[in-house]
Amino acid sequence: MGFQQREDIQHAYQRVRARSLEIAAPLSAEDCCAQSMPDASPAKWHLAHTTWFFETFILEPHEPGFAPFHCAYRVLFNSYYNGVGARHPRPQRGLLTRPSLDEVRAYRLDVDRRMAQLLAGSADPAVAALVELGLQHEQQHQELMLTDVKHLLAQNPLYPAYTPQEMEAGAAPGSLSWIAFDGGLAEIGYGGSGFCFDNELPRHWTYVAPFELASRLVTNAEYLEFIEAGGYRDPALWLAEGWDRVCAGEIPHPLYWIDRQDGWHEFTLHGVQPLDSARPVTHVSLYEADAYARWRARNESGVRLPTEAEWEFAARQAALAAGGLHPPAANGDGLLQMFGACWQWTSSSYAPYPGYAPAPGAVGEYNGKFMVNQYVLRGSSCATPDGHARASYRNFFPAGARWQFTGIRLAR
Amino acid sequence: MGFQQREDIQHAYQRVRARSLEIAAPLSAEDCCAQSMPDASPAKWHLAHTTWFFETFILEPHEPGFAPFHCAYRVLFNSYYNGVGARHPRPQRGLLTRPSLDEVRAYRLDVDRRMAQLLAGSADPAVAALVELGLQHEQQHQELMLTDVKHLLAQNPLYPAYTPQEMEAGAAPGSLSWIAFDGGLAEIGYGGSGFCFDNELPRHWTYVAPFELASRLVTNAEYLEFIEAGGYRDPALWLAEGWDRVCAGEIPHPLYWIDRQDGWHEFTLHGVQPLDSARPVTHVSLYEADAYARWRARNESGVRLPTEAEWEFAARQAALAAGGLHPPAANGDGLLQMFGACWQWTSSSYAPYPGYAPAPGAVGEYNGKFMVNQYVLRGSSCATPDGHARASYRNFFPAGARWQFTGIRLAR
Amino acid sequence: MGFQQREDIQHAYQRVRARSLEIAAPLSAEDCCAQSMPDASPAKWHLAHTTWFFETFILEPHEPGFAPFHCAYRVLFNSYYNGVGARHPRPQRGLLTRPSLDEVRAYRLDVDRRMAQLLAGSADPAVAALVELGLQHEQQHQELMLTDVKHLLAQNPLYPAYTPQEMEAGAAPGSLSWIAFDGGLAEIGYGGSGFCFDNELPRHWTYVAPFELASRLVTNAEYLEFIEAGGYRDPALWLAEGWDRVCAGEIPHPLYWIDRQDGWHEFTLHGVQPLDSARPVTHVSLYEADAYARWRARNESGVRLPTEAEWEFAARQAALAAGGLHPPAANGDGLLQMFGACWQWTSSSYAPYPGYAPAPGAVGEYNGKFMVNQYVLRGSSCATPDGHARASYRNFFPAGARWQFTGIRLAR
Amino acid sequence: MGFQQREDIQHAYQRVRARSLEIAAPLSAEDCCAQSMPDASPAKWHLAHTTWFFETFILEPHEPGFAPFHCAYRVLFNSYYNGVGARHPRPQRGLLTRPSLDEVRAYRLDVDRRMAQLLAGSADPAVAALVELGLQHEQQHQELMLTDVKHLLAQNPLYPAYTPQEMEAGAAPGSLSWIAFDGGLAEIGYGGSGFCFDNELPRHWTYVAPFELASRLVTNAEYLEFIEAGGYRDPALWLAEGWDRVCAGEIPHPLYWIDRQDGWHEFTLHGVQPLDSARPVTHVSLYEADAYARWRARNESGVRLPTEAEWEFAARQAALAAGGLHPPAANGDGLLQMFGACWQWTSSSYAPYPGYAPAPGAVGEYNGKFMVNQYVLRGSSCATPDGHARASYRNFFPAGARWQFTGIRLAR
Repeated sequence: MGFQQREDIQHAYQRVRARSLEIAAPLSAEDCCAQSMPDASPAKWHLAHTTWFFETFILEPHEPGFAPFHCAYRVLFNSYYNGVGARHPRPQRGLLTRPSLDEVRAYRLDVDRRMAQLLAGSADPAVAALVELGLQHEQQHQELMLTDVKHLLAQNPLYPAYTPQEMEAGAAPGSLSWIAFDGGLAEIGYGGSGFCFDNELPRHWTYVAPFELASRLVTNAEYLEFIEAGGYRDPALWLAEGWDRVCAGEIPHPLYWIDRQDGWHEFTLHGVQPLDSARPVTHVSLYEADAYARWRARNESGVRLPTEAEWEFAARQAALAAGGLHPPAANGDGLLQMFGACWQWTSSSYAPYPGYAPAPGAVGEYNGKFMVNQYVLRGSSCATPDGHARASYRNFFPAGARWQFTGIRLAR
Repeated sequence: MGFQQREDIQHAYQRVRARSLEIAAPLSAEDCCAQSMPDASPAKWHLAHTTWFFETFILEPHEPGFAPFHCAYRVLFNSYYNGVGARHPRPQRGLLTRPSLDEVRAYRLDVDRRMAQLLAGSADPAVAALVELGLQHEQQHQELMLTDVKHLLAQNPLYPAYTPQEMEAGAAPGSLSWIAFDGGLAEIGYGGSGFCFDNELPRHWTYVAPFELASRLVTNAEYLEFIEAGGYRDPALWLAEGWDRVCAGEIPHPLYWIDRQDGWHEFTLHGVQPLDSARPVTHVSLYEADAYARWRARNESGVRLPTEAEWEFAARQAALAAGGLHPPAANGDGLLQMFGACWQWTSSSYAPYPGYAPAPGAVGEYNGKFMVNQYVLRGSSCATPDGHARASYRNFFPAGARWQFTGIRLAR
Repeated sequence: MGFQQREDIQHAYQRVRARSLEIAAPLSAEDCCAQSMPDASPAKWHLAHTTWFFETFILEPHEPGFAPFHCAYRVLFNSYYNGVGARHPRPQRGLLTRPSLDEVRAYRLDVDRRMAQLLAGSADPAVAALVELGLQHEQQHQELMLTDVKHLLAQNPLYPAYTPQEMEAGAAPGSLSWIAFDGGLAEIGYGGSGFCFDNELPRHWTYVAPFELASRLVTNAEYLEFIEAGGYRDPALWLAEGWDRVCAGEIPHPLYWIDRQDGWHEFTLHGVQPLDSARPVTHVSLYEADAYARWRARNESGVRLPTEAEWEFAARQAALAAGGLHPPAANGDGLLQMFGACWQWTSSSYAPYPGYAPAPGAVGEYNGKFMVNQYVLRGSSCATPDGHARASYRNFFPAGARWQFTGIRLAR
Repeated sequence: MGFQQREDIQHAYQRVRARSLEIAAPLSAEDCCAQSMPDASPAKWHLAHTTWFFETFILEPHEPGFAPFHCAYRVLFNSYYNGVGARHPRPQRGLLTRPSLDEVRAYRLDVDRRMAQLLAGSADPAVAALVELGLQHEQQHQELMLTDVKHLLAQNPLYPAYTPQEMEAGAAPGSLSWIAFDGGLAEIGYGGSGFCFDNELPRHWTYVAPFELASRLVTNAEYLEFIEAGGYRDPALWLAEGWDRVCAGEIPHPLYWIDRQDGWHEFTLHGVQPLDSARPVTHVSLYEADAYARWRARNESGVRLPTEAEWEFAARQAALAAGGLHPPAANGDGLLQMFGACWQWTSSSYAPYPGYAPAPGAVGEYNGKFMVNQYVLRGSSCATPDGHARASYRNFFPAGARWQFTGIRLAR
């Protein structure tokens, strides 16, 4: 369901916008300004870009007597919308020491004030739909703020914590079991009446052969067995592209793992912690997820990653869950950790559903043009904002991306 | 059908092996040695590597008293089989001025002699199956020999022809029409009793929604309209990755097109020729094929590239055809140019069929490990050897590859 | 003369150290953290590294009961001293959002307090010599703080000023005249009793043929003539390496020049200003300086860049001058602008003087190991701290460096 | 002395031109076509480019009714003369499989025939001077043909020999002694009446302090001591740029050295040979030569590389020598191996002599534009053609170049 069904749109606006500032609160102005790689953006940029979205797509066409807060921001905080004009080069976002964090906060305040005014006076459903899109968009950036700042802090030899805290070791989860699904001709894609992104549409028929899904994600303990069995030294387990990266030293183990004299540790948003056997392995690429599955298949015939259709087929009965700054261990019976722990790599490349059409105008440059050389991840992670996930949600990243909270769900 | 059903395996061996030398015949030793890019290999290397395949996978395990022709060739002419040991770095194949072309010919003769001896004395069906695989493998390299040497010759400002010849302009084909298919639950994958590659298996059920397929490939004349309408200047038509390459100047028009004062020309294996309006556009990337389809969709709702399942569904009734050194114009009625003109980009990423398992051993490193970040092309091209194509055949290349005879078949 | 002759060493310490903080004062914490290219460092890093120098080379060996302020700083703020151990990778200095600017200020305070204590209690001339070296080193970084932050601000489309101010156009200087020198066998290198860097030693004999030196630096107006005459389009004027960069679009005009509809402008530390005809051209590479000289030589036989020996020979009679944030116009008669405007490219590569020996220990890794593929600049710039320059001073940068205040003095 | 003094110019032309073909004689067409790195050129290209030089700079202006042999060759075989128009990109010379080696031989024949005709009928001293320049130019390329083909063959895992032959170990040379020179004000540069390159002019005064020069080159045995003492692991010995390359694994030992179970070997033009202790170390960069000298300086105060002025000062009394395909061991007393063994790195950057002016026109693009970021090598090597060397000769390469026959002469 979208916001407008659940709560007053103005209240939703305030709630979501406030959350972004909460995420930035533990960070200094310096932390908010730096960019650790072209794929990641500074927190300040996220705060400004999400504001730019409301200013550009809602205030500009709908506010009477619209004047931009600052005309240069149109370019500075455009991410990739060609339809809106020029944009600042992505790899140089970290050089924007001006506007300052304080000025960006002032930008947010100003746009929020004007949005409140607009929403108070307007019942235009087109505006409401754009606000909903803008809030969903902001929620996506809220997750990125956390994963991007994690990547930045991890580059610092001091390994500073986002919020320092000692993490308790999770209780060992039960052994992985297989849950069977009949499959058959099934409808896939969003079928409700609330909000969804255009890439979840149209709902359509697909044939799913009978399959089984693992009851929970692969744990650190299980992944460590793969490492200790020589998984990163055996080319037969790897996609050729992945093996090239392993040989180049780019993928020696999951991102953020640290091999110390006193054992494996993991850098988390709470700082460096001893590796917790019970929690799911996270920050792995599709290459690693796939290699792990192939390794398992040597002893358990047919083990592999699920397709996105299989995942969605199974997810209809799964409980939503969310929260925290690191994926929790599985707890309980049945189909666990579908949501709220790690995004789950599928073997499906990111492609349009049959009959897919992007929204008209610049706002439609949201999904379609990225549908090549990316792979679908399903579910949600600990960092996904509450209320943002659903069974038909399609997240997507290149096969080598590791800085998201990605994990491994097996199928067979 | 595989070779062993069609003809005596020994005869097939002689026929296919001889064909490779025929392809090399118009080339000098210098032409056969150079490498124009890491993706392309020298003709001499193709001649040696296909021989290495028979020596390594058939003679070594099956010839009594096997001794290698030259022990260094094991490394020099291994392409990517990790299971067989080290290999010469791919981008440096053009530096192998030794062994000479004459020595590689001697290598072929020696292996052919020993293969003849082995085949004369053996009725082992495992050997026959490997010979079949080796011949199909050599046919794939025969197509690459032509496309790789075309790329090499195109780097030379003299634009030398592989075989000089004036090409006749084709007759203008009829206008493109749409052929409707009902779709439904359908079996996809190879279902015959002859040879197929492992990636065509297992045959499996899939659901295909009703669709229409264009009766023929997009012509040069039609593609030129797209160029003249500003197709390469409009970001809204392009996948983001493709647009980045267009902006970087890497994709200004189809590969081998030459913009001269007296009009567009095209470099072909017969030398530079005036662009023939009637022939299909070829040497385009998936990015270009996709952008062209989006441009058409502005006026004809729903136009897009087909999925590989749609293509295969339709292809069951299509006639095989082959031959020549440049794609011919369409001629006739019905579903034309499915085979023998240009490989056709689909929107399907190259992924394993449900239940896919590679062959055991090093020979199984043939398909599976490349199933990421590549896209499926269907059909065959003018350069595909006679008898090599079939409806279930899955060719695959990265989205940016342009040096194959790739073309555009539309769907909707 | 070194500090110890001029003033009490403790006073000098306080004065120089305070100046670094003054330079950082107009900058926010964000401004101080970002790094715009690998060659430039964040202001915060400069503040910390200069402090690290005193802590590592003076406190560590000389302070009783020495304990480091923070043991990780040893690595974080080491620039290039292999003798002192590991160091943080230079291109990633901008990712060090921690320690914060406040923490670095606290680091400075702590080291300053301990240095004051040490200096109060010690009359060790070895310590005094190291303090002098540390202060001269800090002055070098003071100049870099200004040029590095200028480069950073110039990457921002907002073109923020370091200190906003309208610059007055200088009065047109008199036309360039030639001042003749007899040359002869001459002593070059530092010959005084004060401080100098090891690369200025030993003083040695060299033969200087008779030559003439331009009375002042080349102005913006004169350089503009070169541009308008097609200087950047004529390969005959350029060193081959420079021409390659011109063709690659890397050197279209002096760095920081902006071509606007209403004429040429220049980004300065005071913000964007109309190009001032009277001031010297600055932020040019050796390639540009050399090309300009060759262009002048077409009409004035023998015009070229000076050697460093010629420059030093002439400079003995030149007046020191300093100050400001942009090079001032020449004013007066005689040999002008030798100091305090722009560093002046010479045709001399940076090489050891005959008999040169670096200081023993890690502190000796200061000059010698950079004596390859760099060129000597002589004089000083507007950004050089007061009291830092002298006639024998040898500055050095790669031929392509442009972010320093570099200018052109002609010889013939 | 130039050719015209020594022998009839026509005879010289025939002799030098014939020598190029002799050098190519042991090579196949394939060997002559490949290019192993951008800095090296195919032998076929050398054969064509040297011919292009005569055609372009002599026949074109001086032959009545001149018509080019093939108009495309003007671009294909231009090396770097901007004044003559476009040129084929250097890194793609190896892709020129056409014209064939036979066609290039025909090109040579044709130009030689026309040159003979021109020379028979002309006594124009300007023509004679250009012929002399063309022959000297061709001799330089003769040396490059050998070093470039050596580099190519070394990339082949088969390590084919240019001319297979077992090399005899040299007799151990006497221990290195120091020969003293008084120095003083001296004239440097070519002072004779024969041919020299423009970079050897003008002859000029320079001051040379008293110095000593090593009696012979550093041997393999001596260099091995440096390696075994950890020379490649000690940053204190290296220029910073060189150390970066060592750390990147690019410079593990002299180029072409091979570390085998049965000891060090060296790839030579005669194939792989056991490392000969008596012969001079060769194929070292300036970084290695400089590091070796610093290592020696730890025990012998002041050891370093010579300047080019020192080298030339000393060379006036040295005997010319030449020949062979690998540097021979020193033999005898006095100042040995100044010529005919290895080019000797100096500490002098390649810069114009005072008053230097390049020749007018395109032919003047020979030396001047390369006078940046290169270092002077003096003497000659085993591969330098007989009669090409002289004491004032200035060879030059970037500090990292290793594929020439470079060696180490110490000074102090």
